[in-house]
Amino acid sequence: MKLEEIKLELEHFMTPGRYIHAINVMNCAAELASRYGVSKEKAAVAGLLHDCVKDLPRGEILRLCDEYGVEVDDVSLMQPELLHGPLGARIAREEYGIEDESVLKAIRSHTTGEADMDMLAKITYLADYIEPDRRFPGVDDIRRAAFRDIDSAMVMALNRTIKHVIAKGALIHPATIAARNSMILSLKKRAEGLG
Amino acid sequence: MKLEEIKLELEHFMTPGRYIHAINVMNCAAELASRYGVSKEKAAVAGLLHDCVKDLPRGEILRLCDEYGVEVDDVSLMQPELLHGPLGARIAREEYGIEDESVLKAIRSHTTGEADMDMLAKITYLADYIEPDRRFPGVDDIRRAAFRDIDSAMVMALNRTIKHVIAKGALIHPATIAARNSMILSLKKRAEGLG
Repeated sequence: MKLEEIKLELEHFMTPGRYIHAINVMNCAAELASRYGVSKEKAAVAGLLHDCVKDLPRGEILRLCDEYGVEVDDVSLMQPELLHGPLGARIAREEYGIEDESVLKAIRSHTTGEADMDMLAKITYLADYIEPDRRFPGVDDIRRAAFRDIDSAMVMALNRTIKHVIAKGALIHPATIAARNSMILSLKKRAEGLG
Repeated sequence: MKLEEIKLELEHFMTPGRYIHAINVMNCAAELASRYGVSKEKAAVAGLLHDCVKDLPRGEILRLCDEYGVEVDDVSLMQPELLHGPLGARIAREEYGIEDESVLKAIRSHTTGEADMDMLAKITYLADYIEPDRRFPGVDDIRRAAFRDIDSAMVMALNRTIKHVIAKGALIHPATIAARNSMILSLKKRAEGLG
């Protein structure tokens, strides 16, 4: 499916607020892609589709994970909302005809993060974090960092997410820790002139 | 080795400050053991020996891990100080003749935590956290919680540690997340009357 067709489909399928968010993330991801010299079209598709199954109830998300063979780890079993990334990537492939692996990986990792995220995955993660309707203390610092140094912005966002999950008393997904650790190591290597 | 022999050995081997800390943790662990009805002697031994290799330089810790076949994961390779738990457990067995598996597990997990810690492991972790010379904002809350509800105290301590590691910009060990997640799940099960 092309971008305009996906928009029409999502507009019918999503709640109005979610659809506005999807458009915001699409636009923000395209801007970041332009800043970092990767495909604006891929970033736009990943941004548009990242929450394509987020409006589904938890039980339906678990049922679809079973139907499509999406792996459900222990933490996600307790907090099925974390599965809308991996399931969304699967639905993007099966229902929206997206075949580009980097777009699918970006959708998959946009909530928890994961180790060794590529540029498109970081762009999608951050566009979701900083799109214009996001309002929380510190969002402007992450917005600025996202366009200045995307790896530093990722560490800022992951740190905030971990602290937010702690404040909620929820489980922390191991992939979030893996994402943060790998990002810190790559910043460290870069600082040492090895990256 | 018996407790008094271990003390003599450690007093020669450790810096004075570390030795005082070891004695404090030994006493605090014995108090917690008495509160929770587990062996005071085992808790005392685990508390006394928990930092038995902590005064060694990082390079020496890595060398001994290699010599004794202690597994070095990616995060610990970057932050070898995290290995003083696993290596300490090995040295406790080989050099101090400790054979009790629960004592060795308590020493192993006292810095990072790990999934499914037993009572002795929780006691050792918390005694290290709250011994009388520990001073940081919030320590008294954790002290009180440790004697009232050890699982809640563990979550408080693990939360603080994760936030502290974030503030330092250091890597978070996955075992710390596994410890926190398993503790939250067990509190949840208990609240639901299943635990």
